[in-house]
This record gives sequence, C-alpha cells and structure tokens, in this order.
Amino acid sequence: MKVSVIGATGYAGVELLRLLKNHPKVEVVHITSESQTGTGIENIYTHLNNVYTKKLISMKDIDLIAKDSEVVFIALPHGHAMAVGKAFEGKNVKLIDLGADYRFKDTSIYEKWYKVDHTHKDAKRVYGLAELYRSQIKNATIVGNAGCYTTASILALAPLAKEGLVDLHTVVIDAKSGVSGAGRSAKVENLFTELYDNLKAYNVGGHRHTPEIEQALSEFSGEEVVLSFTPHLIPMSRGILSTCYANLKPGVTTQMVNEAFEKLYKDEYFIRLLGQGGYPATKNVRGSNFCDIGWHVDERVGRVIVLSVIDNLVKGAAGQAVQNFNIMCGFEEKMGLEGVPLYP
Amino acid sequence: MKVSVIGATGYAGVELLRLLKNHPKVEVVHITSESQTGTGIENIYTHLNNVYTKKLISMKDIDLIAKDSEVVFIALPHGHAMAVGKAFEGKNVKLIDLGADYRFKDTSIYEKWYKVDHTHKDAKRVYGLAELYRSQIKNATIVGNAGCYTTASILALAPLAKEGLVDLHTVVIDAKSGVSGAGRSAKVENLFTELYDNLKAYNVGGHRHTPEIEQALSEFSGEEVVLSFTPHLIPMSRGILSTCYANLKPGVTTQMVNEAFEKLYKDEYFIRLLGQGGYPATKNVRGSNFCDIGWHVDERVGRVIVLSVIDNLVKGAAGQAVQNFNIMCGFEEKMGLEGVPLYP
Amino acid sequence: MKVSVIGATGYAGVELLRLLKNHPKVEVVHITSESQTGTGIENIYTHLNNVYTKKLISMKDIDLIAKDSEVVFIALPHGHAMAVGKAFEGKNVKLIDLGADYRFKDTSIYEKWYKVDHTHKDAKRVYGLAELYRSQIKNATIVGNAGCYTTASILALAPLAKEGLVDLHTVVIDAKSGVSGAGRSAKVENLFTELYDNLKAYNVGGHRHTPEIEQALSEFSGEEVVLSFTPHLIPMSRGILSTCYANLKPGVTTQMVNEAFEKLYKDEYFIRLLGQGGYPATKNVRGSNFCDIGWHVDERVGRVIVLSVIDNLVKGAAGQAVQNFNIMCGFEEKMGLEGVPLYP
Amino acid sequence: MKVSVIGATGYAGVELLRLLKNHPKVEVVHITSESQTGTGIENIYTHLNNVYTKKLISMKDIDLIAKDSEVVFIALPHGHAMAVGKAFEGKNVKLIDLGADYRFKDTSIYEKWYKVDHTHKDAKRVYGLAELYRSQIKNATIVGNAGCYTTASILALAPLAKEGLVDLHTVVIDAKSGVSGAGRSAKVENLFTELYDNLKAYNVGGHRHTPEIEQALSEFSGEEVVLSFTPHLIPMSRGILSTCYANLKPGVTTQMVNEAFEKLYKDEYFIRLLGQGGYPATKNVRGSNFCDIGWHVDERVGRVIVLSVIDNLVKGAAGQAVQNFNIMCGFEEKMGLEGVPLYP
Repeated sequence: MKVSVIGATGYAGVELLRLLKNHPKVEVVHITSESQTGTGIENIYTHLNNVYTKKLISMKDIDLIAKDSEVVFIALPHGHAMAVGKAFEGKNVKLIDLGADYRFKDTSIYEKWYKVDHTHKDAKRVYGLAELYRSQIKNATIVGNAGCYTTASILALAPLAKEGLVDLHTVVIDAKSGVSGAGRSAKVENLFTELYDNLKAYNVGGHRHTPEIEQALSEFSGEEVVLSFTPHLIPMSRGILSTCYANLKPGVTTQMVNEAFEKLYKDEYFIRLLGQGGYPATKNVRGSNFCDIGWHVDERVGRVIVLSVIDNLVKGAAGQAVQNFNIMCGFEEKMGLEGVPLYP
Repeated sequence: MKVSVIGATGYAGVELLRLLKNHPKVEVVHITSESQTGTGIENIYTHLNNVYTKKLISMKDIDLIAKDSEVVFIALPHGHAMAVGKAFEGKNVKLIDLGADYRFKDTSIYEKWYKVDHTHKDAKRVYGLAELYRSQIKNATIVGNAGCYTTASILALAPLAKEGLVDLHTVVIDAKSGVSGAGRSAKVENLFTELYDNLKAYNVGGHRHTPEIEQALSEFSGEEVVLSFTPHLIPMSRGILSTCYANLKPGVTTQMVNEAFEKLYKDEYFIRLLGQGGYPATKNVRGSNFCDIGWHVDERVGRVIVLSVIDNLVKGAAGQAVQNFNIMCGFEEKMGLEGVPLYP
Repeated sequence: MKVSVIGATGYAGVELLRLLKNHPKVEVVHITSESQTGTGIENIYTHLNNVYTKKLISMKDIDLIAKDSEVVFIALPHGHAMAVGKAFEGKNVKLIDLGADYRFKDTSIYEKWYKVDHTHKDAKRVYGLAELYRSQIKNATIVGNAGCYTTASILALAPLAKEGLVDLHTVVIDAKSGVSGAGRSAKVENLFTELYDNLKAYNVGGHRHTPEIEQALSEFSGEEVVLSFTPHLIPMSRGILSTCYANLKPGVTTQMVNEAFEKLYKDEYFIRLLGQGGYPATKNVRGSNFCDIGWHVDERVGRVIVLSVIDNLVKGAAGQAVQNFNIMCGFEEKMGLEGVPLYP
Repeated sequence: MKVSVIGATGYAGVELLRLLKNHPKVEVVHITSESQTGTGIENIYTHLNNVYTKKLISMKDIDLIAKDSEVVFIALPHGHAMAVGKAFEGKNVKLIDLGADYRFKDTSIYEKWYKVDHTHKDAKRVYGLAELYRSQIKNATIVGNAGCYTTASILALAPLAKEGLVDLHTVVIDAKSGVSGAGRSAKVENLFTELYDNLKAYNVGGHRHTPEIEQALSEFSGEEVVLSFTPHLIPMSRGILSTCYANLKPGVTTQMVNEAFEKLYKDEYFIRLLGQGGYPATKNVRGSNFCDIGWHVDERVGRVIVLSVIDNLVKGAAGQAVQNFNIMCGFEEKMGLEGVPLYP
C-alpha cells in the first residue's frame, strides 16, 4: 500500500514515520514540509539516520502525491487540512487527517472553538476513534483522526454514557499531558528550563478538545453533554492521563460499572482494563498504541472516577492513524502496532 | 528562641533545618533520629556540610529536650507524635507537629482514616493553617500543622465556602504532587527509573488528606462537606497543584468570586492572587512559602475552577510550621520565610 | 527457535522480553525468578499486560529449561551465571550471559575486580561484542555479552587502537549513564528525589567495566592498555554517552582518523558514523540497538575526542544479546532489532 | 549601597535579583532590558510577584543609572559590556560584568575565541574569581566575573597547578552543565522535548571557556597551559560538574594532593573539600554559592581525577558576582549568600 505523509516534520508526523517504517504492508512514497522542502527528513531528525531517509517535497505537488499514493496522512496544524482535502476530491485517495478539521459533524462548532471558517463542510468524513466508530471508518474516504486528550477521555467515559450509568451534567475531566503535545515550535514557554520541575494548567474552560468530547458523549447518550475539561502540562515527554469524574445515577453499583466496561471493550486489543481499583500509569503504554483504563466507584461520595492513559503521540495521534488505516484497508487492526511499551 | 526538631532526617525535617538556619530569632538545640542516633545530620544530608552540623540524639531524651527547648517541632510519621505530645505535658514547651496526629477536632475521624488509636484525645490542639486559624494559633500550645495537599486545597476553596458561593456537594479536587511528598524510604515504586517520564494517580477515594479538607470546609460553611479528592504523582521534586471544581450557586458572578478571594486574602503576604484567568505554576513558588491562586469562572458549564500551588515541603510542611511558630512566638509572620522562589 | 530467560525480572531481563516478543524466529518457553517464582511477569511489570504473560519458574528447574530450550539468556547479577553455565554443560544448549562472568579471557582479572572466585574457568567462552568478535560468536556455545559502558567505549576506541593512531597510555574515558543502569533494587540513593536535578560521578578509578575495556583495547593494539574510566549518573532513564580522549600519535591527521572508522564500521548496520565534528545524542538511539559515533580531531591540543552513544538496555544489554543470538543461530543480524528509536 | 542591574531579564540577571533581594546592605535602584523596556520584571518572571516588582528601563539611560548607582552589575551577552564599560568611564561607579568582555588580560585571546573586536582594551580590569584573585578584586573598578564552567574547573585544578603536582600538558576537563546555562532564548534545540531524557556534548574543542581556564592555570603554574575542555548538556535545570584529569608528576602522593587542597582552601567558606574519595553532587549545592570538591588519586593509572560542582547560576554567575561585590565594598564575603542548598 503506497502512502504519503503531508506535514512530516512535527512530532506526530515523525512518529507516524516510525510506525509506518515497520508496517509490513506500507511503502511511504512522499513526505512533505513547506518550510524545509528539499531537505532530508534525517537531517532534521537525526535519529532517523540510516533508518529512514527521504527528501521532503512540497505539498503543492498535489498531483504527484495523488498519483503515487493510495492513502495520504495529513499531519498539519488545524485549518490547513481542509484545503488539502478539497484538492484531493475526485482523486481516489483516502485521507487520514491527524488534525481537527474533519472531526466535527457540525462544522459551526468547529468554527466557534477554532475561530476558523470551515471551507470543506460537505466533505464526507468519519470521526476516527477506532474502537467506537470502526464500522464507519471501514468505508470512509476521509477520516478525522481523534485528538489526544479526546481519545483518552472518550474511551474512559463511553461505557458509562452508553449504558446511562452516570449523570452527564456532572462530568469533570482533569487531564494531564506530557510536553510533546505542545509541538516542536520554538517558544520560551516550552523551553526545558521553564517546564522542568514545574507543573501548571492551561486553557481552562477553553481547550478545543472539549467540544470533541462533548460531541461523542452526546451521541452515545442521546442527550446534550456540556462538561468541564482542564488540561495540565506535565514535565515529561509523552503520555496523557485523563482523570474523569461523574456522579453515579441512583442504584448504580460497582458491578454495573464493571460490566459496562467489559461489554464495550472485552474484545479490544488496544484497550486494557485494569478494573475497579486499578491504577494506569503513562509509562506502561509509552511508545505503544494501548489505552489502559482503571476506575474507582466511590460510594462515600456517589461518584465514579475513571482513569485512562495513552501515549499521546501513538494512540493519541500516529498510532490511532495507523489503526484507522488498517481498518480502512482491511488489514489486521494491530498490524504494525505490536511494539511492546518501552519500560523503564 | 531555643527550638528542637524531633524526627529531623525526613525531607520535611531537613527542610525545617534549612529554614531555621537563617531565622534570626532561632537557635536549634537538639535534633533527633531513632535509626541514626549519634550520627551527624551532615553525614546523612551532605548538602549540610559546613552549614548545619549537629549530632542526632534519641527522642527518648525527652527531659533533656524539654529542659533546653522553648518550642519543639515534630516531624515524625503519623501515629508517633501523640506519645511525644503526652510526654511533654506540663513541661512548658510549645509543640508544632508536622504530622496528622493533632489535626482533627474529632479524633474518631482520625482513627477511621488512619487506622490508629488516638492516645491523646484530650490534648488542647489547634489546626495549623496559619491564614485561616491565626487567632487560635497565637495562643496554642499544640499546633497540628496542616497537611500539604490540604493546605493547597483549603486555601483554594475557603473563600468560596465562607461566602457560600458554591454548592459544596459538587466539590471535586484533583491534586498533583512532586515526589518529595512520598518521603525518603527505599521502595521500588519510588525509584527514579519507575517515576521518571511517568504519571499516575494513587489512593483514589481513600487519601487521608480528604477528611482534613472536609473538616475545614465544613467549619467554614456550616454544612457537612463530603468531597472527591484524587492525588497524582508527578515526575518532579517539589510542588503541589490543586485543581478544584465546584458548581456555582445560581446568580453567582465572576465579580462575586473575585471579591471573596480579595476579602479573605488581600492582606496575606504568602497568598498571591492571580485572579480570574490566572495560571499558577509550581516553579513560581519553589523553595518559598507562597501559595499562588488563580480561578476560572466558567459560565458555559456553571462551575468555578480554582487552581492553587505551593511548595509541598515549604508552605505544605516546614515553611508553614515556621509561620505558625512565628505566630505563636509573636514574631513577624514572614520572619525567616522571605527567600525568593528558586527559578528556573 | 525456543529460548528461555534466566533472571527475567531485572530491567535487562524485561527489555530482553520486549525485543524477543517481536522477533520472528523466537518462542520464549521459560522465564525465571528466584524471589518471585510462581508470579506472572505481567504482575511485576504491568506494562506487559495482554502483551507478554507468563509465569516465572525457578532456575533450579534446570533440566526442564535445558530440555525445552535451544538457547538460554542469563540476566543475573555477576557471580551467579557461572553455576548456571556449569549446570548446562553437556546439555546442548547455547548460553548468552548478559553479566560479567564470561567476559574475561584471564579469569584472575575477573576475580580481582569482582572479588568473587571464578568457578568455571575452563568454559569455552567468547566475548560478545558483535561487531568486533563476530566470527568467534558465530560458533560459540557460551557468549559473555559485553557490558554497557564497555560497548560504548570499545566501539569508540577500537578503530584507533587497531590502526595504531593514538597513544594508548593517554586514554581517558569519561562516561555518563542513565539511571536504568543501576537496576531495580530499592535503595535510597536511587530514589527519584535523590537523583532528579542531580549529577554525580561514582566508582572513580574502580568501576568493573575498566578491565573489560582494557582487555579489548590490549587485544586490538597488541600492547597492554591501562586507562582511566570514570562513570557518572545522569538524571534520565536510558542512554550512555562515552567521551573518550586520547593523544594522537605524531603525524596522524583527521583523514586518517576518518578512514579508520570507515574501514572498521562501513558495513555495520548498527553503527552510525557521524564523522569529524558530529555530535551523537542518547535520545537518537533510545529504544534501538544503534551506536552513534562522532569524533573531533583537535589539532590545537593534539588529541582526538570520540563520542559514542548507545541505549544501555539495548545495545548495552538486551539488544546486543539478541544480535549475538542472531549471529549464533545464523539469522540476519538485525532480525527483531529494526525498531526505530523512540523520539522525542 | 545602591546598585543597578543592566540586562536583568536573563536567567543570570534574575538570579542576581533573587540574591540581592535579601542582601542586607543592598538597594536595587535600576534594572534594564532593551527588548522589554517599560515592563515590570514581575510580569516576565511571575515568581517575583509581590516579592520583587520594578519597571525595566533602557540601558541607554546611562547618566541616570550612573547618578543613582554606586555599583552596576552587567548581565549582557558577551560583546555588549565593553560599550557600557566605556560609557561609565569617569563616573565613579564600580562595574561587575557577568559576561566575558573583561575576563582576559590579553584581549587578542578574547578576540580570537569570541570573534569580536575588543573596544575597551585599556580598561583596568580584574578577573573575578573571588577565592583566587581576592586581593586584586578588593581595589578593582571593573571586575570580569569568572564564567560558570571556568569557576568549577579552575577551583578544581588551581591547587595542583600552584603546587606543581601534575603535568599540565595532560589536563583533560570533561564538564557537564544543566540547561539553564543555555539561557532563555527560544530555540528548538533547547525545548523540553528535545533535551529531556537526552544527553550530548557540544562545542568540543571550541568552547569559549577553554582559554579562560588556560589563562588562570598558566598564571598559577608559570607555564603555558593548553588543555582539552569538553562541555555536555545534562537534562537538569541547574548545576555544573567538572571532571578534571591530569597525570601526576613522579613521586606525587595522595597526601601531597590532599595538602595542596587544604593549603589553598582551608579558610574558604564557599569551598567544601570532600577529600580523597569524595563524590560531590550538584544537588548538594543547588541554589547556594558553594563549590564542593573531591579528588581521586588513582595510582594504577598515575592520574588524579578532581571532581567539582557548583550551581552554575550562583557560584557560576550571580552568587560569585555578589561575592565579588562584597569584597569590593568591604562587606563580609558571605553576606547575602548564606542560604542553605535546596534539597531535595
């Protein structure tokens, strides 16, 4: 299967190259960068020396890319994939966008939170959270790969929303991410010295992953969900932990919660259920496509607290993209994604 | 003022020595350790070489300690201070316990959460959170210094509880701490390799600081508060961030929230209000006794999110103990606590 | 190929399991631990959940292990592999020992530095540094896998020693390692709090990898090499950087140095030469079996400084063991070792 | 004593403010920044809120600064202090430059290594390494504060150079620094993600602190010293460790080495000798002006290895500047510098 990566020089793009390198069915034909066209990717990321060496071209060579590729991954900042999507119309290429442009059913929500006009509203698109939208992904042409915080959070709460076990008006998601989620642009605030031995929240009440989580939970529950989402920056490279709180509906027991998780995820390879009392840790999934989930039904306070962890660059970005790719192409879903987490 | 430190070899004890060293009114006369009696503290903590050199004695020399000291700091694991407190009865020495033994009005709560019998129930004791219990601390003989998570959390929520601005049944506290809070005992789970580039929650629904926060908020509000408290271990040395969520009561505005914080804290040196939209960061208080607080009234969801940070070993332990000491002794409250945060 | 791992619960052992998991020709039949016999490895290392689940047996079941295995990896502390080696004599099993017991030609050197009697002196053994001892490894029954610091250091200096370009009496090796090299035992000195934001040297002049490096360089040069080796502990998980200094012999040019490296390593997949002026970084090899080498001929001072990096758990332990295994079994040398470094 | 700080917004400048804040004899009257003139320093470094609040002015207001200040600290990048120094001529203000412009006796060496013309060659200047140049600093008008790597390295080697115990042609200095030494400018290479869990050398053979160390050792020994100096970037905030190697002259014993250190430093408050076999650790000096030194006479190889640690921002920059200031002003040398190291 011939694939290309548009926007290969960000952390998500280069993680995609890591995963695609060992995918038995993939050949990467083109990779692009606008600011470093003509440079070898291995000169920008020297860990790729002798492993992955290829010249970056411009994404303006759209015809070349379309001609040579069966699937194209887009790893651009939000707002830039729509134009690419339009340009590929009618070219018989499947698109997997790692950004936000194709994640929303209602583009007015996208426009409100991202403050960008949506220029490809009529695109037939599918939300790319594999475990929960698999059947639609299978036949999709454009997949809007789920976001990092959203993947961890939706996977944590979907069983409870689907089974109606919690009061969705009480949902609070307190999420924590390693710094690779902030990207590779040179900003004082992302310097080692500023973040090491430091901890803070950001974008309280305004993070753009909020409506994405609300969209999914509303779908699963049939009611309009409005929730609190607070992201935090943790002094580590990779990993997201979502700590999700919700009031239990009257009469809901631990067993009912356990069963909801089992029911939805018992056959999922990438979801590892740690059960009531389980404590997922980000290091346990580092470098892998796993999502580990534990929960705590706390009768004293009448709440359930769900903890879920992913590697933000794998299950939260590139790994999920490959998983979606496998689904779209009819490959085994874990193909190329069987690496053991890197521990310690 | 002659003081002694019982249990000087834990991280809180040695931080106390750091602060007391430059306190203009203090002379430290005795320091104790049961496992390393006879050793110089500078041999255990070599950063104290030439700075602070003193032989550790046993706390069994209670008469000697009592004779030589006007104030005694106790930095022992919970359950061990009660016996010390009893032994000092009638000896005209003031006690500041950094552990949990003297923090609870209702010792049955202590016994339930700590699973230890309380053997000094009739002790006249005061809860040692300086900004909120100052007048009682002034005349106290035994102060139960507030815990680390509790200090950050109570200071964040006290203005809202006192002014009745939030529904206290909806309080969720998601707290994060650096590893020094876990102490210095040799455990696999606290090894560098296990915690570096890693993140996890622990003791969900069962952490012992929960009832301490509930006790204070119940007092301030006049209603019985039951809340969710979730601690997390962050791969950094020092610092706590408490992210506190509560539903706003109908009609409560941002201005009312702002005023509640201003009213309670406007004259407090150690509390720095960052206001609506402010983002405290643990590195901004590292090594200092400050507590930085910001808040976000989120009208979309009808909640307020309060963020507060402290250095767990200073305002969360040794610094607060010195602040209480200053109050008890009639010294200026910030004496010995004016060091600028260490940044970066 | 059926293999077993004796001593599977240390960091090197578990890293071996990670690599063997995806090796296309390997089936792991037994794994052992004396302190946790009967436990599933996935209960000790929970990142292995659903990925690698197997009960630990005792290495006392030597007959069972011998019967079921064609190759056995030993990942025990030094001093313990010799007995295993003796017990396997005549059992038609190949052994790869990740420890030091089979690394020395002259066992008296082992006995002097390790302060242990050698009890298997007549073992036919081969030193397991693949790039430099490949032809011997091919036919070996017992391989003493090279140490971590030694691999980085010998690979850095071998070309210069072989070509006689430097004065070997002037060799100084200043090496730095991440903390995983210190193992997983519970010691105060290895706690997160003690090592984070900290840096120190240890075992100056006495580290046991010194004679191993001296043995190899003496062999390559034909003269007896005595050198300075200083290890340092770096606050990171994985990675070794060896900074090697040596005086250039009169008349030696940069080109001659360049050619020495090219000559020895130009066909080596796992050695990536960054050339004169190149700066290897540990993160560039993290999780992989690569060794990146750069050098600086400094004419002003008449020295060459060689910099080499490896992942101490991969090329410095488990990866090299798999590489040796491939050589011994006639597989392609990079089989199972083609994972791309995990960056960032 | 009224002082000003020119260039207050770098890490060294802001560390100077931290130390000056609690100096009992100092009032800071002006602080400058060219890029952020008019802004309060507490808006750039929010840890200074309520602690240190002052508007930044431009250093072009040279007359104002000169009129109001008795001593001026300059914390500008190299090449910029010379113009300031010239502008202050005849203004009866003492200058302490934390950069390199006034460190060299022979300005041609400066010009060669820094590739900048020296425009103030006739300045009467003194090298500001307090322990070794105290008597000259006492009467100086312009002090060129010693560099960070150089302070650690010169203090380590001075006793051996002065007593003629080592062959100075064999000196190799392998130095390691925390990231704060790289400053606060926004560069991809200094991002958290790039440096965390990573390690590398830089500027091998070409670092500008090399000639500064050579200048001092040449002076102390009376012979021209040419040495190898290799800096490394360590994933931590603060701290430098210099590992220094030199061949012992024939007949030199451990005792002679011990005595050389004792002789030179026995009365120095800021130098803590750990002796033969001692291991300094950067965390032991964090936030303090101490320099801890241990050494290892290694008879097997005929070398001595000296290890020295400092906090690069304190003894390596701002603390040393304050120490020099105290000497120049006749204050007790440790005034304002008695803070205990921040541990853990």
